[in-house]
Amino acid sequence: MNPAIKNVYSALKNKKLDGLFVSSTPNTSYLTAIRSRDSFLLLSSKKNIYFTDSRYITEAKKYLKHCEIRKIDGAVFRALFESCSALKLKRVGFEKKHLSFIGHEKLSKEFKGKIDLVPTQGIIEDLRMIKSADEIKKIKKATEITILAFNYLRDLIVPGKTELEIAGELERFIRLKGANSSAFDIIVASGPNTSFPHHLSSERKIKNHELVLIDMGVDYLGYKSDLTRVFFLGKISTLVKEVYAIIKEAQAKAIKRIKAGVVAKTIDSQARNFIAEKGFAQAFSHSLGHGVGLEIHEAPGISPKSEDILRQGMVFTVEPGIYLPGKFGIRIEDMVIVTKKGTDLISGSLNQ
Amino acid sequence: MNPAIKNVYSALKNKKLDGLFVSSTPNTSYLTAIRSRDSFLLLSSKKNIYFTDSRYITEAKKYLKHCEIRKIDGAVFRALFESCSALKLKRVGFEKKHLSFIGHEKLSKEFKGKIDLVPTQGIIEDLRMIKSADEIKKIKKATEITILAFNYLRDLIVPGKTELEIAGELERFIRLKGANSSAFDIIVASGPNTSFPHHLSSERKIKNHELVLIDMGVDYLGYKSDLTRVFFLGKISTLVKEVYAIIKEAQAKAIKRIKAGVVAKTIDSQARNFIAEKGFAQAFSHSLGHGVGLEIHEAPGISPKSEDILRQGMVFTVEPGIYLPGKFGIRIEDMVIVTKKGTDLISGSLNQ
Repeated sequence: MNPAIKNVYSALKNKKLDGLFVSSTPNTSYLTAIRSRDSFLLLSSKKNIYFTDSRYITEAKKYLKHCEIRKIDGAVFRALFESCSALKLKRVGFEKKHLSFIGHEKLSKEFKGKIDLVPTQGIIEDLRMIKSADEIKKIKKATEITILAFNYLRDLIVPGKTELEIAGELERFIRLKGANSSAFDIIVASGPNTSFPHHLSSERKIKNHELVLIDMGVDYLGYKSDLTRVFFLGKISTLVKEVYAIIKEAQAKAIKRIKAGVVAKTIDSQARNFIAEKGFAQAFSHSLGHGVGLEIHEAPGISPKSEDILRQGMVFTVEPGIYLPGKFGIRIEDMVIVTKKGTDLISGSLNQ
Repeated sequence: MNPAIKNVYSALKNKKLDGLFVSSTPNTSYLTAIRSRDSFLLLSSKKNIYFTDSRYITEAKKYLKHCEIRKIDGAVFRALFESCSALKLKRVGFEKKHLSFIGHEKLSKEFKGKIDLVPTQGIIEDLRMIKSADEIKKIKKATEITILAFNYLRDLIVPGKTELEIAGELERFIRLKGANSSAFDIIVASGPNTSFPHHLSSERKIKNHELVLIDMGVDYLGYKSDLTRVFFLGKISTLVKEVYAIIKEAQAKAIKRIKAGVVAKTIDSQARNFIAEKGFAQAFSHSLGHGVGLEIHEAPGISPKSEDILRQGMVFTVEPGIYLPGKFGIRIEDMVIVTKKGTDLISGSLNQ
């Protein structure tokens, strides 16, 4: 089990809970270092129990220490109640963001008021925001592989290739470099497709004198990366050059402000206000960034509303964008770690 | 909107509901043919409303007909309540499997008892079980691309290559053939790794005289495929040959029984009993199959407990397996469509 589990016990004590049912896969992965789906954890200072099915039982027994392993065949809520009863737990928390309405119905039916069920939020996610040295190592490795992929594709982006062909070459390359998979469907957007922030790579052929936007990340031992660059083919219009320069400067201004103690929304507004001053307020339609770790989007949020306070060990993206529907879009996305002294731009070796 | 929406209206009428809030992405994709995340539908015979954010609004306006489009900025439950009020709806259903506990909390807070919220289950999923001609066309195309990939990789599986290298070659190839992505992380399992039904492809190098199991599928315009084959390198033991023959026969026996009107669990038991008779009851640790469509695992379930009754237009996998921990595992997975006359084995052209 992850040593961070002692912090979970403290959080439970503060909330007067004697157990926590963890149903989110990234959260169970974080605590157990096992990437099994359909597996659940009961945490309590008396005993931790991992519930998994026949597909994962061998791996669980091999790798998971300081945790009882219990085989389930779908009936997790029944098994959970039995375990909570055996441990004489009185107040058990569940993750209200990661349990469906029907899941809660079934859970309540098993617990029948005999043990209190208490909704909780963010207990594990709060811990996950601050990355350990080992986690940072994996995120850096994921980022390095992505940088290699961006350098590899410079020669691949030529008129006549389809967006999907380029995505395919990247999918192959990252695995040759040791990635487990891509972190999400790689976005290869060409020409007017760049104006959709979440374009699905298509069979469209790249043409000369247009932009190609690549947004990609990889999964390395469960940890993710997420970077975006725009490539230019042939002649580039003055407007494109102008927008590119604005995005570049907006990103630099935001990154400069990152340090422990700063409220996340002020980082967002740093970039957003600059883009607005330049007359493109409506064209920057998403958050400036998001945390990255076991999930591609996780806390902290770097958005206009985010009250998260930056702390040492946080890892997130900085990705301002300007999208002009029907014309083009430009986004530049890098990844930073909040350090003791300020910021480590971990994707800094990737040229623009 | 999908013409199947008229069946949703009938289902709502039967349940005395005058609206349905659809929060599952595959369900919204099914009804709108738009593959946007974080987008929601309000269905009612008075009006349908699609709630989406700035990332997808342009696409939605371009492609979605007979449906109002409303831009949201995170506050979907507020927008939903306003729309339900404006339409004077009294009883609105929500999908209890696809709304989190916290989602329901927020929804209830907005609705404040002014409009009844009714938990529903499976309204859209029941419709999705029966595939239209257009859906079958897409699933067949996804299956064809996967078959091409299996034929392509015969020459790729050689001693010295890593599992991830092979996965990477496949990821590239499927996109060259027009797939949008893989349907899930491709499983390339070699040697003893084959004994884990859900192995994650690793940097392990393939050796001579061992098995390589490939489980893969692709996404073609949202629709999935899912096939598994085992490849043999060099000398094969008698036990491996024996197990392979059992799986092959178990699968054939199960497929033979598939036709409209049959209860799904009897298809499962056909294969399961045969494997048990041969002495491997404990080694077949998962369901015989699962529906495939917009999701890689969907209804109907082909499992020991499934009461689903097979109907014309259902598409699912048939995938018996035997796993001997520490030694090896063998699974063969094909895809079938239940037809008017019996069964169409759509992966039938893929050699063993």
